[in-house]
Formats: sequence, C-alpha cells, structure tokens
Amino acid sequence: MLKANVETFLGCDCPADEARTVLFGAPFDSTTSFRPGTRFGPSAIRHESFGVETYSPYQDRDLEDAHVLDVGDLELCFGSAEKALGDIEAQTEEILDAGKRPFLLGGEHLVTLGAMRAVAGRYPDLHIIHLDAHADLRDDYLGANLSHACVIRRCWDIVGDGRIFQFGIRSGERAEFAWGRDHVTTQKFNLEGLGKTVEALAGKPVYFTLDLDVLDPSVFPGTGTPEAGGISFEALRTAITLICSKLNIVACDVNELAPTLDPSGVSTAVACKVVREMLLAFPDY
Amino acid sequence: MLKANVETFLGCDCPADEARTVLFGAPFDSTTSFRPGTRFGPSAIRHESFGVETYSPYQDRDLEDAHVLDVGDLELCFGSAEKALGDIEAQTEEILDAGKRPFLLGGEHLVTLGAMRAVAGRYPDLHIIHLDAHADLRDDYLGANLSHACVIRRCWDIVGDGRIFQFGIRSGERAEFAWGRDHVTTQKFNLEGLGKTVEALAGKPVYFTLDLDVLDPSVFPGTGTPEAGGISFEALRTAITLICSKLNIVACDVNELAPTLDPSGVSTAVACKVVREMLLAFPDY
Amino acid sequence: MLKANVETFLGCDCPADEARTVLFGAPFDSTTSFRPGTRFGPSAIRHESFGVETYSPYQDRDLEDAHVLDVGDLELCFGSAEKALGDIEAQTEEILDAGKRPFLLGGEHLVTLGAMRAVAGRYPDLHIIHLDAHADLRDDYLGANLSHACVIRRCWDIVGDGRIFQFGIRSGERAEFAWGRDHVTTQKFNLEGLGKTVEALAGKPVYFTLDLDVLDPSVFPGTGTPEAGGISFEALRTAITLICSKLNIVACDVNELAPTLDPSGVSTAVACKVVREMLLAFPDY
Amino acid sequence: MLKANVETFLGCDCPADEARTVLFGAPFDSTTSFRPGTRFGPSAIRHESFGVETYSPYQDRDLEDAHVLDVGDLELCFGSAEKALGDIEAQTEEILDAGKRPFLLGGEHLVTLGAMRAVAGRYPDLHIIHLDAHADLRDDYLGANLSHACVIRRCWDIVGDGRIFQFGIRSGERAEFAWGRDHVTTQKFNLEGLGKTVEALAGKPVYFTLDLDVLDPSVFPGTGTPEAGGISFEALRTAITLICSKLNIVACDVNELAPTLDPSGVSTAVACKVVREMLLAFPDY
Amino acid sequence: MLKANVETFLGCDCPADEARTVLFGAPFDSTTSFRPGTRFGPSAIRHESFGVETYSPYQDRDLEDAHVLDVGDLELCFGSAEKALGDIEAQTEEILDAGKRPFLLGGEHLVTLGAMRAVAGRYPDLHIIHLDAHADLRDDYLGANLSHACVIRRCWDIVGDGRIFQFGIRSGERAEFAWGRDHVTTQKFNLEGLGKTVEALAGKPVYFTLDLDVLDPSVFPGTGTPEAGGISFEALRTAITLICSKLNIVACDVNELAPTLDPSGVSTAVACKVVREMLLAFPDY
Amino acid sequence: MLKANVETFLGCDCPADEARTVLFGAPFDSTTSFRPGTRFGPSAIRHESFGVETYSPYQDRDLEDAHVLDVGDLELCFGSAEKALGDIEAQTEEILDAGKRPFLLGGEHLVTLGAMRAVAGRYPDLHIIHLDAHADLRDDYLGANLSHACVIRRCWDIVGDGRIFQFGIRSGERAEFAWGRDHVTTQKFNLEGLGKTVEALAGKPVYFTLDLDVLDPSVFPGTGTPEAGGISFEALRTAITLICSKLNIVACDVNELAPTLDPSGVSTAVACKVVREMLLAFPDY
Repeated sequence: MLKANVETFLGCDCPADEARTVLFGAPFDSTTSFRPGTRFGPSAIRHESFGVETYSPYQDRDLEDAHVLDVGDLELCFGSAEKALGDIEAQTEEILDAGKRPFLLGGEHLVTLGAMRAVAGRYPDLHIIHLDAHADLRDDYLGANLSHACVIRRCWDIVGDGRIFQFGIRSGERAEFAWGRDHVTTQKFNLEGLGKTVEALAGKPVYFTLDLDVLDPSVFPGTGTPEAGGISFEALRTAITLICSKLNIVACDVNELAPTLDPSGVSTAVACKVVREMLLAFPDY
Repeated sequence: MLKANVETFLGCDCPADEARTVLFGAPFDSTTSFRPGTRFGPSAIRHESFGVETYSPYQDRDLEDAHVLDVGDLELCFGSAEKALGDIEAQTEEILDAGKRPFLLGGEHLVTLGAMRAVAGRYPDLHIIHLDAHADLRDDYLGANLSHACVIRRCWDIVGDGRIFQFGIRSGERAEFAWGRDHVTTQKFNLEGLGKTVEALAGKPVYFTLDLDVLDPSVFPGTGTPEAGGISFEALRTAITLICSKLNIVACDVNELAPTLDPSGVSTAVACKVVREMLLAFPDY
Repeated sequence: MLKANVETFLGCDCPADEARTVLFGAPFDSTTSFRPGTRFGPSAIRHESFGVETYSPYQDRDLEDAHVLDVGDLELCFGSAEKALGDIEAQTEEILDAGKRPFLLGGEHLVTLGAMRAVAGRYPDLHIIHLDAHADLRDDYLGANLSHACVIRRCWDIVGDGRIFQFGIRSGERAEFAWGRDHVTTQKFNLEGLGKTVEALAGKPVYFTLDLDVLDPSVFPGTGTPEAGGISFEALRTAITLICSKLNIVACDVNELAPTLDPSGVSTAVACKVVREMLLAFPDY
Repeated sequence: MLKANVETFLGCDCPADEARTVLFGAPFDSTTSFRPGTRFGPSAIRHESFGVETYSPYQDRDLEDAHVLDVGDLELCFGSAEKALGDIEAQTEEILDAGKRPFLLGGEHLVTLGAMRAVAGRYPDLHIIHLDAHADLRDDYLGANLSHACVIRRCWDIVGDGRIFQFGIRSGERAEFAWGRDHVTTQKFNLEGLGKTVEALAGKPVYFTLDLDVLDPSVFPGTGTPEAGGISFEALRTAITLICSKLNIVACDVNELAPTLDPSGVSTAVACKVVREMLLAFPDY
Repeated sequence: MLKANVETFLGCDCPADEARTVLFGAPFDSTTSFRPGTRFGPSAIRHESFGVETYSPYQDRDLEDAHVLDVGDLELCFGSAEKALGDIEAQTEEILDAGKRPFLLGGEHLVTLGAMRAVAGRYPDLHIIHLDAHADLRDDYLGANLSHACVIRRCWDIVGDGRIFQFGIRSGERAEFAWGRDHVTTQKFNLEGLGKTVEALAGKPVYFTLDLDVLDPSVFPGTGTPEAGGISFEALRTAITLICSKLNIVACDVNELAPTLDPSGVSTAVACKVVREMLLAFPDY
Repeated sequence: MLKANVETFLGCDCPADEARTVLFGAPFDSTTSFRPGTRFGPSAIRHESFGVETYSPYQDRDLEDAHVLDVGDLELCFGSAEKALGDIEAQTEEILDAGKRPFLLGGEHLVTLGAMRAVAGRYPDLHIIHLDAHADLRDDYLGANLSHACVIRRCWDIVGDGRIFQFGIRSGERAEFAWGRDHVTTQKFNLEGLGKTVEALAGKPVYFTLDLDVLDPSVFPGTGTPEAGGISFEALRTAITLICSKLNIVACDVNELAPTLDPSGVSTAVACKVVREMLLAFPDY
C-alpha cells in the first residue's frame, strides 16, 4: 500500500491513543550567541536513531514494548523568540490535554521555557531538575531577556525560590553564581547530591531539563559551547535512569545537540542513547 | 491532532489515489568500488528539499499543483545486490500496478536495474535514455556482474541493441567503449544529439536514468567518482526539461548523490532542484 | 612598542580622518530559516583577506593606496531582529555623519535593512541595485516581516516603486514574482540590462546590495541556500567594477557568506576578492 | 636505484623468509548497515602509522627489532560477501602455509569470518577472544546471514559452544543476549574476568578478534556505529598486551576503523598504536 | 568614534603600562613533520575565546580584574626556523625589558626555543617545567637540529643537566629515553611527582612550557600528533593552577593546538580555558 | 607469494629498465605562507588514482601501454628549504642519469627549483612553460628568497631573460608584474598565445611546470591560495595535451594540490586525471 513516508525516533510510532509519552522537536537556535546549529538537533536524533538498538542491556527493556509517539518537529519562526516559544507552549498544551507526557527535543536551551510555561500552569507545585554545564541564570544577555543564557532565570520567574536544582554547572558569569546562591540549589562541576534531591522530591511533579553539554566535550563534542571538565556518559546514564524511574516526571526535554559540530556523529549517537534510556526508565514506559 | 511524523520530498504528499508519480528511495551502495555513501542520497534529498522553493521560475509551475507522493525509502539488505534488486523491483511493480509513474531515487546506479526489470516487463518496446559520466557497460567488475559499473550492460541484456542512448560519457575501460560501438548509441563528453534522439523516440515508452555525475564536479562534487569535464547545470536543466516534457517517460531515476562527500551541501541542493524540475516537466504533473 | 592587537581587512587601516570608506561587520543570522552561519562571514572575510594580494591586476590599483578603515564587527543581540537592525542603523548613521561611505559586511541579507534606513533618510532620491539569487520580496515569512526573505520588500516600503533594480534572481515564491512585476525591476537568471541601468542611474545616489549567492554555487558554495544556475565570477567581477566605478554609490553591502559551509575556503577567498575589487573601483578610492 | 614505491605499516618490511607475523588488509564494508567507510581502514592505518614511533615506552620494545611483513590490501569484490570471504580465507591459508601468524586489518567485522575459516581448519581446539561493543550474534540481519551483525554467530557455527569469550559488549538485540547465554561467555560493558580467561586458555590456540568500537567513542570516534559507555584506551592497552603476550595467538584481527568518520585523525592514531602494541607483545616478536 | 578594529584574547586589553603579563602569538609550524596546522593556533585561541566566560568558578577570579595585554601574532618567515626563532626571541626581549611576563602562544613546540633564549639570558638559574606527550629530546630530526622534535634538547643545550622536569611523556625514540635518563627528569605517562617538583623549585625562576598534546586525544583531538593514553582535563587544570600559583613563572607558553584538525572546536575551547586558568592563577594576576 | 606492499600511481609500475618517465613525490610545504597541506599532495594523487580509469577517451590511449615507474615520495627535511631542494635535485639527477624523464609531484611550488637545478645543468638552452594563478616572481618573501612566492624568480636566476613563458597569471604584487615585463613573457588571466609559444619552442628542451591553481577554484578548490577567475578543466586539458605532445618535455612537475582543503575529493580526482593525460600525451609514452 502506497502511503506518505513516516519517520519517527526509533520504535516510537505507537498509535496516538495508546501513547503515554509524546516526543516533539523544537528546531530553534535564534538566540544562540556563539555557534548556532542546534536547530538541526531533533531531526538528527530522529534520523540517526536507527544506529542504536531498541533494546537496552542496561535496563533490560525494549522500545518495542514502549508507548511513545514521535509527532515530529514544529515549524518555528526564526528571528522571534517570543513567537517560537508560543508555538512550543501550544504544542505542549495539546500533549498535556491528551493526558500524555511531553518530551521535547531542542534546539537551544531557551525552548525549555515554552514547555515550562505550559507545564507550570498545570502543576503549581512544579520542581525543576536541571543538568547543564552553564548556569543560564542571567537576567538578560546582550539586551535580550529571552535568551538561551537566561532560560533558567526565566523559569525561576515562574516557579520561584527553592524549586530549581542544578547539577554539573561549571560556567557562568560571576554575577550568576552570586545571584544563584540565594535562589536556586547549584551543585558545581558534578552530580553530587543528586540522590538526596531525588529522595526529597519523591512524588512531587518534576520537570526535567537536560542540557547535553553537561557531558564532557570528549563524550559530547557536538554542541555550541563545549565546556571541558564535564561528567562522563556513565555518570549521566545512571543519573537519568534514577531521575526518570524514581521521580514523577511530568515533562522533560533534551537539548543543545548541534550536529553540524559533530562530524564523526558520536554526539548524535550519545543523544539517541540518552533519549532511549530516558524513555525506557519511565515507570509507565 | 497528534500523529506520527510524516516526511516527504518538498510538497510531495499528495493522497495516494490522486498521485500520478510516486517517489521512492533505494538507499543502496554495496557494490560501490571506490567511495561509498550514495545510500544516504535519498534521505538527504528528501530532508534538504525544504531549502528549495516549490515554485520554478524556469517553468512557471509549482509543486503545490503537482500530483506526487513520496513513499519513503526501502529497507534494503546490504551485502546482497540480488536481494536488494528484488525489493526495488517489487516496489516498482506495486507502483506500476497502481497506474502511476515510478520515480526512483538512488543509491548507486545499480538500483536502476531493479526498476528496469519491472518496467521492461510491461513495455516490450522500452527505450532508455542514459545521462552519465561513466559508460557502465562492463560485463563484470572484479568478478561481480551485478555492479554499478555493469548496470547499463545488464539493462542491455534486457532490451537489446539499439534501445539505449547514452550522453555525456567521459570515462570507462577501453573495452567498454569498443563493445558499446556495436550495441548502444554513445555521445561522448556532452549532450549533442539529444534533441534528435528525443524527436526519434516521440511517443515510445522511455525509461530515463540520470546519473548525476554527468554534471561537472564543480557543480556536483558530492559523488563517489567525480569526473572532471562534465556538463553544466544549465545544460542538464534544459535536457531534463526536454526529456520529461516531450517524451513518454514511463519511469525514471536520479542517482549517485553521496551527501557524505558534499560538506557544503551544494550537491544535495542541485539534486533537489533537478528532481523538482523533472517532476514539474511531466505533462501530467 | 607593546599595544593591543589590531586586525583589519587587508590594508584597510587608514587613519580615521583620512578614510573615505568605512568597513564594518554585522555578524547576524538569527532569521535565517535554512542553514545558519553567515554570522561568521565578516570575521572570516577580515581574517582570510591576508590570502589575497593588495594589488589588483584587473584594475591596476592597490589597496595600499586606498583610503579605507575597517572598524570591526558590531556586537549584536541574537534573537531580536529589531534590536540588531537598530544597532546597524546607528553605526551607519555615525559613518555618514563623518562624511564617509558605509560598507557593510553581513551576515544574512536582513542586515541591509538597518543600513538602508540610515541611508534613505539622507537621500530622498535613493535607488537600489540588488544582485541576488533570491527575490527577497515576501511580505512576511513564517509570521515574521523582519526576515532575510523579506528584506527587499522592506526596502521597498521605504523607497517605493521604480527604485529597485534586481539582477540574477532565480528563486522565490510564485507570489513574489507576481508582486515584483508591479513594483520593482527584476532581471531573472542573469545580469542582462545592467549596463543600461547603470546609464539610467548616472549621478543618482545608489545603495548597492550584493548577496553573494547570486554567484553559481560552483564558484561560491559557502552560503546557506545555494541555488544552482548562477552567474560566473567573471560576470560578477565585471558588474561590480562597473557599478562601483560609474555610479554614485553612497553605501553598499556584501552579505551571505557562511564560512561554516565552506570547508575548502574558496567562498571566503571569493568574498575577499569581491570586497577588494569593489573598494578599488570607487572613483575616490 | 629506481624501484617501485613500497609502503608498509611502520617498520613492517621484514624480508618474507624472516617474518613471523604477516599483516594484510581486507578493505571490505559491503554489509555495513549504518555508516560505511571501514574499507578505508587498512590503508589509513598503514599510511598514518608514520605518525607514531617504532618504540613503545610501555613495553620497552621497538618495531625495528620485530619480524613483521605487511603485504598490503587484498582487492576484494564489493557487493558479494561470499566472494570477499573466499579471498580473505585464501590469503590466510597462504600465510599459515608459510608458517607465519596472520594479522588481518579490517574492514568491517565480517572479514573475521574469512580468516577464521582458514584458521579453524588447522586448529580443531581453537578458542576465540572477542572484544567488541556489539554482540554480533544475530542469526541473520535483514535477510543476510553473512553480515557484520552475525559474524560471531557464524564463528560459533564453526567452533561451537564454550569456545567464544566476549568482553565489553554493550549493544545488541534482546534475542542476541538471550541466545548468547547458552552458547558463549559474554562479559557485558567491561573487561572483568579477562585475567581468568587468559589463565584458563593458557597454551591453547586462540584467535583474537578486536573490534575497535569496544573503546569508548570519546577515544575512538571513527567507527560506523559508536556506542557510548565503552572502555578506556588504558584498559584496552593493558588487555591486548596481556592477551598477546600470555596466550598462543595463532591469528588475530583489528577492525572497524572508519577513517571517513574521523576528521581529526585520532581514531586512526589509536588504531596504529593498538597494532604496534599487539605486534610488540607477541613473545616471538 | 571610528577606529581600527582591535581583537584580543578575551578581556586581555589592559593598557600597556598596567599590564603584568603580555600574550603574543607565534604562528609557526614549518618544521612539523607529520600534520601541520598549529600556525593557526594563536589566532583561533584569540578568536574563539569569546565562547568562554571571563569568570572562573574554579578559582573564583575574573579576567576583568586581570592585568593582561594581548599584542597579537608575530609575522614570521616560513621556511626558515632560524629567522622565526630570532623574531620570537626579540619579541620576548621587548616584553622582558618592559618588566612584564611573556606568555607565548604557539605554533609548534619549536617556538619555545625563541622565548627560552631570551629568558635564559636573564635568569642564569632558570628551570623548566615541561608537560608533553613527546620527549622532544632528539639531537636532530631528518637532518635538522631546529625541529619541534628537538626543542627540549636545544633548551638543555642552554640550561644543562638537572634543570628540566618533564611530565606526561609517552612517546619518543628509544634513544631519547636513554639519553634523557642522564640529563633530565622524566615522569612517564602521568603527572606523578609534580607536587614535589613544585616544592623543590619554590622561589626559583621557572619557564613553564605546555604542549597541549599532554592531554588525552579524547579531550584534545586537535593536534598534529595525537597520542592516546594522555592525562585528563581535570588533571591538567589542577596542575597548571598549582604551577602558576606556587612557582615564580618568569615566562610560559602554550602550544601545539592545530585548529584545522579540530572540526568540532572542542580543542580550541580547551586551549582557551587553559590559558584563562593560567592567567588567573598567577599571584600578580 | 608474500612480499612487501607496493603502491604506485595507477598503472605506473613499469620495470625500471623499461621506464621512460619516472614519477616521484616531494611532500614539502614548509615555506607555504597561507594554508599548508600540499605535503600530502603526492600521496593523495597516488592513493586516489585508483578512482580514475587507465584509459583516456580523449586520447584513446591507455596507461597499461605506458612506460612509467612511480618511485614514491622523498623523505624531506621540514624546516629547511635548502636541504629539501638538495634532495629533490639529487633524485632528479639520478633519473636523468638513467636516461629517463623526471615527473615531479609537489608539494608547494618551490619544489620546482630542486628539479630545475638538475635539469638546467644538462640543457643550456632550457625553456620553461609555467601555468599558474600566481606570478611567483618576488625576489624575496618575508625575508626568505627560497619561498614558493619566489620560485619562478629563482628559475630566472638560472635561465635568464626570454626563456620563461607564463600563462593564466592573475595574482601578484604590483612590483612582480612590473619586474616581469622586462624579463619573462606573461599572459595574464588565460592561456591566449599558448599555441604560438608551442610553435616557437618546437624542438627545444622545455621544462613544464604546472601549478594546479591555474584552474578556477570551482574546478580545483583544494589548494592553499585559491584565486577566483581561473581557467576551466577543458582549457587545461587541451593545453597540457598540446604541450606534452608537441614539445620536447625533458622534465615536468604538477604541484599545489592540498588534499586537506578538498573534503569532497574533487581536486585530487582532477590532479589524477591531469597526470594521466600528461603521461599519455608524451610521444614516447
């Protein structure tokens, strides 16, 4: 039977009514100040996912058994962060309305704000777990307050003090770190204390935002602003399994893959494996 | 409404029952002897087609008005040319059975043989127009007779003398040129005589096979075996418009784009434009 | 004597009070819809200019004799086209105030609008010569009216009918071409008629905007949206020499080099040579 | 004296009658399902070996003292795995007939099967040590049973249960792991237990097959299917020294380097060092 | 105010009379025997430094408070090592004359010799700390004694026995290691003993030369001769902080970044961070 | 029979005593001022020659009938132009002593001088045909008189006025062009007048030096200093056939391919075809 070509992330073509998690891409990088290219992240993850297996020997689970639907990339307006965020928020709303978990693939980290706006409206008690190399706590950047460098600060505008838990942070302005001390919980350089945070947030609604540059650039070179001194793949794999299996993740995102900066393809392969392990770790996979 | 991601060549998502031409990809390059990578050609053409416009100022026609469906890539067995050709033949049969024109995107040139087998079975009077840098007339290559270097010879096995018209040929073994003189019509180096050939074949069923390396490597660097001294884009554009608008093209293919050898992306962009112009040139577009 | 490192385009370090032309860069590509990277254009042109000679055997003139100052790149806000355009306009104003000719290096084509706003304020009779592959006449693009794809339409908002002369255009929506017929003069595909246009505009103030993708991608692959079928380097060289030597060019720009898409460096080299030839062609060089 | 150019792996031009180990390359990757390019592995290793020293500070031995001859690459038929394996088997036979140790450079992992067939015929008690990221235990892959993804299963067809010892495996189908539990010894993720295996196999004839993707992609990005979570260079170096110095290695191979996916060249450099350390570790070096 | 474009390493535009450290580049790689490209190192470090922050969360110091001036790259004669070294020596002299600390950015490692000649003339008791993958102790290389492979041997010609302390060395000829045992202190493979060396050299004038290939290629792929088995970024970061903060560093250099071999840009990013951390660690920063 | 691997340019493994032309490589680029990499030219040409056919449909001749031996690359000292030139001269002498025609593959253009010194000593009446984008007539460059930018001037030192005929020149200092007018015959931009020059030099001993950057960068991007506005492949092919078939070419060279700047491989493919056509054009092929 002849029909239009369907392309989804590996094994994520579950019928809409059975899906529990919905993947969608936000190919946006207009506020990226240094090296753009994360706009190509979601389609690269989708396209290259066929290089990994559906089965995880770590979790002994298989995407063939999972309930995930990949609805593809949004068509976003370049040059207007506000419009793009509006479209991301609307898509997130639609997924939440359908009773499913939104799983957003960026794009630059600013896309998180679009999803967060939708999610925070439904979960007044929302908490955020944030893995990243960069604090992203600036109030504005070169005159813009909708910038990748400000995204967690904008999330704080919504959720307020004591709700944001950062790990792996190793880069930022002096002022960001100073401001952060009073408003968010920041673990510099590594993931120490993550276990305790997971215990403390048990049962609460959690938005999990993963900037892949938390990984060391040796593991994940394909990103706009690589920061030496990051965590290993094994550390990240253990952390995401813990977070996604033990917490009530109401929405999540994975972002900052820039395939154009990844000529060997290893970063895209890492991103695919991270997405697979997250999808398989959800209790309702 | 949430549904699985659909990706087609630009504007080619016509409902199946209205489609007149059906695009499909054969991501196969196992017999490529020099530099592989054409397996990535069809998906690159599909993916990058969004960088060209649907409208052609050359023909004043628009893909938005065309009746084309892109059904995606076959999943082919690597390492067995015979199995891969069987799958291509079957897909071509299905499209012909549906009363539509098959438009195959390669892959290496050998994929033509799969489509040809299906088409030749229905059109005993089939003729072939072949644009290429290479004669592809070897009887075998390193012991294999199913090889990209033998594909037109294999087509000749089916259609016989006097049915094959080659243009742009500028590379081959001494023996290929010698053999060719008795069995096919070969225009070396350029497209001279194409107009007369088109006149002569008027009304007859024609399979049109386009190896993009007929273009000069300055225009189309992204191919496994670049051969300096090829034709210009404008020469090719004029030729394909002539062939597709004036002849009874019952099936066709475009092949030998190797995106991995095209870091600037210009070759993929050329391939997209070539496909667009061919699709728009068909009288029944 | 120890002093901070100065870097300018080859030979363009004339003292400010002697300079007649002032080069500046606008490293902006936030509205680029397909493949970003032109933000790196101005610094690549500056940095790689040392690969060309100061002397032009075409014009028998030497940059060592020219009166040009390169003041470097603006620091622009990413993610807000309006803010970026404001900064470009301000810089252009400053150069005009000093009685010098602004020469802007993009960046994506939208940057032209910033410079145009400043120039048009001073020259009510301003005309525009526009060399490009793309018409850039959309009224909006994906919801944004400040987009690279709309830039000439925005210029038309300022100067009105009969003032814009386009050459080399070979891509656009059907609607753009239709709209253009009533409002601008468009030469499709090539530069025919340029000589007459130059004669007709003799003595009038002219803004010259050059999108380098007017060149064929074989000559200039390093750009976001390559369009096969463009003009040759020799055609462009002759045209820019004519335009810059015969007309009253009150400001100009050269844009759309994306060095990240130019791994061999040939596109940057072409851009450097184009800038050199333009600088040397001005009667008051 | 003028003579035809000789190129061998660094320092491996020992006269044939004195050689104890014979290097040869099998530039084959036709069954590679994801990203081809390992066909260029052997020549890259040979060509880039001049970037490493002949002396190993780890073992305090020098290739200048070793007895190794590099006879170059086979010319293999692309598109027919069976023919290619036959040629590899024949070359291995010839080396064994000459009383020397075959050392095969791939190519994709399937090439191992050609060498194994020759070796197993002479050593009925043959055991296999297999370092890899992938289990390679499928019975067939997309309809082919001669596929890189099936190579260890095909070796098992020859040697049977209890003879194959896998280490570092971190990717495969669910079914492969299940089958493997009954037929081979698999150490997942790392090299634990290698010391005991080496003790247990003391004195027995061993074929050592090394798929370089057992290394973490940070160390070895240049391979078709990178799998995050692999072993470090130091872990591999220690292991190969142990295996080659303590066991009776009757033949061995190193495969899956894809230089086209290694733009910085680090993977080729790793491969060269691995080959050097293996060659120097043999007791009869 | 219009003035010629100034470009310096991030935040290093301190007025000359206030500067305590002076950065300068030596873009030279003529004696590189394997893969050239380090000539582009200094400008890449300068240009890409805007991707890192001025603030170090490791040291809680900020380049905005530092007293550093970047005077740019020397224009060196290619093809004559002696002339190039003379120019480097002269620049170093000028900086020393001004009472400032020279901080040289290479280029290949041979550039160290130019700076060393100037420094050794002023500090008869000079010691050298040398971090590198390669011993660089050859007396000559392919007939040249001014070669990157001989640079530490040439330094030894000046300072003599017992003054040079090498760490991380994992590559060299057998003869180099043998010679080194009698003349320099070499720690193979890692940085063990660095703490004791720093204690022993307290108060003495020290030249610190850092060949970035001491890092593992996974961390720093962008160098001419990558050597697997190197140290981690964290090990290097700790070491340079110790060396620069505890010792009397009278001059230093960082070399062997080859940006052309670093398509993802991670190596340049590492180099920028290393330079930042060194600049901030000096007691008089 | 096991023997060390032999690698030659396609089909050029003629026994030494039967060879009429001897190919050898000079992998040297130490004086290259802009972008190095031509050192990899000769081995790339040799290695990639297997992508072209032995048969030329242009000349209807086949390398299988030719008498050519490829003796491989010299091992040259980097960092000393004088030593490298000495080795090239010695190799050229040896070939001339054997009564064969030296055919040198560069490398940067300076290598010509080594061969020229040997040849000029035997042919007092030697003339030079020089195809290039650059005049190469500087007396010194950045203080060095042995530089790629001076090579034809150095040849003039040997042969004197009226013996050198340049074609295609489109770049140089003002002073070079001025000097050249009195001492050499320079055809700017194209090959006009080549036919007459060939007639005039009939029977005289001629050294033919071909800098491949005479080609337009669209045809030949892989070179250190690309200069837009060059000649087409067809123009070059015709010219080299004329020169090599009609003149008494006593030695020749082809240089300035930089494979590292040629990611698509088209430039190497062009160089291979140029070498093949030259070898087949010699009357005594």
